[in-house]
Amino acid sequence: MDALHLYNTLSGKKEKFEAIKPPFVGLYVCGPTVYSNVHLGNCRTFISFDLINRYLRYLGYQVRYVRNITDAGHLENDAEVGEDKISKKARLESLEPMQIVQTYSIDFRDKMEVFNTLPPDIEPTATGHIVEQIDIIKDIMDKGLAYEINGSVYFDVLKYSETDNYGILSGRKIDELLSGSRALDGQDEKKNAVDFALWKKASPSHIMRWNSPWGEGFPGWHLECSVMSTKYLGESFDIHGGGMDLKFPHHECEIAQNKAANGTHAVKYWLHGNMLTFEGTKMSKSLGNSILPNELFSGDHKLLNKGFDPMVVRFFMLQAHYRSTLDFSNEALEASEKGFQRLMAAFETLHSLDVSDTSDIDSDSYKSLFEGAMNDDFNSPILISHMFDLVKAINSVADGRMTINQATKDGLTELMQHFVVDILGLTPSKQGDGAALIDGLMDVIIDVRNRSRLNKDWATSDAIRDQLKDLNIVVKDGKDGAKWEAQ
Amino acid sequence: MDALHLYNTLSGKKEKFEAIKPPFVGLYVCGPTVYSNVHLGNCRTFISFDLINRYLRYLGYQVRYVRNITDAGHLENDAEVGEDKISKKARLESLEPMQIVQTYSIDFRDKMEVFNTLPPDIEPTATGHIVEQIDIIKDIMDKGLAYEINGSVYFDVLKYSETDNYGILSGRKIDELLSGSRALDGQDEKKNAVDFALWKKASPSHIMRWNSPWGEGFPGWHLECSVMSTKYLGESFDIHGGGMDLKFPHHECEIAQNKAANGTHAVKYWLHGNMLTFEGTKMSKSLGNSILPNELFSGDHKLLNKGFDPMVVRFFMLQAHYRSTLDFSNEALEASEKGFQRLMAAFETLHSLDVSDTSDIDSDSYKSLFEGAMNDDFNSPILISHMFDLVKAINSVADGRMTINQATKDGLTELMQHFVVDILGLTPSKQGDGAALIDGLMDVIIDVRNRSRLNKDWATSDAIRDQLKDLNIVVKDGKDGAKWEAQ
Repeated sequence: MDALHLYNTLSGKKEKFEAIKPPFVGLYVCGPTVYSNVHLGNCRTFISFDLINRYLRYLGYQVRYVRNITDAGHLENDAEVGEDKISKKARLESLEPMQIVQTYSIDFRDKMEVFNTLPPDIEPTATGHIVEQIDIIKDIMDKGLAYEINGSVYFDVLKYSETDNYGILSGRKIDELLSGSRALDGQDEKKNAVDFALWKKASPSHIMRWNSPWGEGFPGWHLECSVMSTKYLGESFDIHGGGMDLKFPHHECEIAQNKAANGTHAVKYWLHGNMLTFEGTKMSKSLGNSILPNELFSGDHKLLNKGFDPMVVRFFMLQAHYRSTLDFSNEALEASEKGFQRLMAAFETLHSLDVSDTSDIDSDSYKSLFEGAMNDDFNSPILISHMFDLVKAINSVADGRMTINQATKDGLTELMQHFVVDILGLTPSKQGDGAALIDGLMDVIIDVRNRSRLNKDWATSDAIRDQLKDLNIVVKDGKDGAKWEAQ
Repeated sequence: MDALHLYNTLSGKKEKFEAIKPPFVGLYVCGPTVYSNVHLGNCRTFISFDLINRYLRYLGYQVRYVRNITDAGHLENDAEVGEDKISKKARLESLEPMQIVQTYSIDFRDKMEVFNTLPPDIEPTATGHIVEQIDIIKDIMDKGLAYEINGSVYFDVLKYSETDNYGILSGRKIDELLSGSRALDGQDEKKNAVDFALWKKASPSHIMRWNSPWGEGFPGWHLECSVMSTKYLGESFDIHGGGMDLKFPHHECEIAQNKAANGTHAVKYWLHGNMLTFEGTKMSKSLGNSILPNELFSGDHKLLNKGFDPMVVRFFMLQAHYRSTLDFSNEALEASEKGFQRLMAAFETLHSLDVSDTSDIDSDSYKSLFEGAMNDDFNSPILISHMFDLVKAINSVADGRMTINQATKDGLTELMQHFVVDILGLTPSKQGDGAALIDGLMDVIIDVRNRSRLNKDWATSDAIRDQLKDLNIVVKDGKDGAKWEAQ
């Protein structure tokens, strides 16, 4: 396709992308809830939107990418010990939710870096926007679309539905939602089962709590994204993304909240990434087929034959379209590993190709194939299949079966740099610091040095010594054999 | 010293450390303002408190370490372009302070990791605690110790001084502060020049603003630390640290705010780290002698002869006591580099020492020397000088001039692990991924392989091939010579 098109969940169609205010693009993606290690399904979502962010930048847009961290949870204070007031004041010995937030935010950022995703431009947190959430609740109440009861505030979905379409994104119907939900049992203070919380009164055991016009409490989960997306991207912005599972109720509620508060639909294009399975089954802890990123890298998991480099995993994920489910298996990962190596090797080969006056390859046609694939709703698997056609052509030139001229070589080098490195975000392995390999190579060198000395081949042993010296490495002979150290 | 003593700025004396509620210790350190790349002076402060945090943990305390990020700044909206309301609503093209926060938070966390500091247990932000700051302002106003004027709220220092000592930490006297300050010029809305802001009304051009009982504005800088330290560590906690330059007014104001709101002095021990100089002169951008961490690592700065590994820089900093000024110079850094290498080499040597039945070394006496140094107000330079005595002893054993038995070797190995790795936080170099060195070593190997083939020494060239194969490296011969690739 000539121009970027993307599948808008809101319309259920592929649409031509037209930025609201070019060259700026506002992109908001629902981030992780940091109460456990980030799981692979989440990683896939963020790698998908990393691809989208990177491609938009390649097209020349000035993207402001906002991805939140959900750190206002629902943790109850059941770990608190001690009853006296002093110990309650000296809160050190009680569970502090923000400590959990910190632990898993570090894990999350670490994994995002290992997967070579670009950091978002703004990474706002729910707890960082309590004032703004209280402000929007007041707005919605002023419009008559929310009500307070017992210190909690709920969004009045039926009232909203009189003038607006709750279900516009997910296709759910109010009648079906109502008939499908439990009757209110007297315990439930909401007017209707479909209403959702904007603010919840904190029970005495709830640790995370803030003062509000309705007493101490905490915001409803859906609210933070409505607030943070519009605060940083404006009341109307271009793209909102997230995992498929967030479509309902989370994103439906976001739409209703923004429409109720501001009178506008905040988001022009809604994009949703699909799920991961393992050998056809949904990954879940209870089934024992849930794999953490570190387990996948090390291979330390009963379902894995071996470990895989993070770049191989990224490549594997990008070999599926973001809107398709992706099935993990040892075989599929091993195939991706080979493919990744072939691709990266060809990229290296390209740099050292001999040029001729003639060229059997045309870089412009590859460029238009590559862009055409990505313009078609970010179709990375089609892009990669075109890349493998180019890999074949590069290898044919290397084997002398085809020719390439300097202009084409330069064009292809730039094209591969853009599409392999900048857009797919693939780099040579980022894993490991090479220390083990360095040790192994030094073993080879010391062994050869010993051979040359035994053979009285002083020229070779001197050459080795001099070359190592240039690398700041000194080899010392001791009673246990030669040892080396870096200076 | 047998028990930990620390210098308390509040008393001006070394005091025995007694935790308020052992085994818990609350430690709060003022973190960076993330509006530029973190500078070396800041890094020194955080490395000093990293040492303190690590040693407290070694002593068996359960430390909760809180270090904030100051992200509520004073940025004016002078970069905003466009005048129409729509463009103001679609805020994408205007400067967004949180984007700056994100950029420099990433830089800061990266440098802290490179310097091998342990992350804090909680890393709260000023913008994440607006509600709590508003709450404490209300408290202080209720006590009659703050007043509102024109939408701003100021702390009434003179009123506070009627019953409390403003100056208790810094030794400043109210009278001198008053006579030393400009007379109020009519522009100034404060009652007295010494009063400080708890809340500032936002001018129309101020971007960072929140709703409050006093209108839209932003919190005063001193407030966040009062709020975040007590929120996460309790109204009374053990240790508050920061750079010497924060003693007045920042920490003095913190004390006054907490005393006014809660009636208690929040902090038992105040610790302050000292400054960095370069060849005797304060580092500053205007003097051109300010060096960023990355410039120091690469050596890419006109005042530097070469680059230094982050671990060498850390070691260099720990060779001075945290309360002394530390002077940077090429010579001092080069001396530290040699010292660091000697220390790490001895640590390696220790592992491979041959043991005897007798021992000329006593590990317990080193342990008590090491602990004694650290118990004396975290005296790392004395600790390191004792370590070099041990280095000499280790090298004497390696040379056969002294003996060591198995029990002592085990004891020293554990001791060095604790004090070098766990407490000083020194590891073999973390810089670089070894790729350049691997390339260099492969050049040596390919060169030797070529020699052996020229000499028809097939045994050697086969041995090289086989050993490389074990390392998953294949060498291929082409018309431009041999090339290698990792499989």
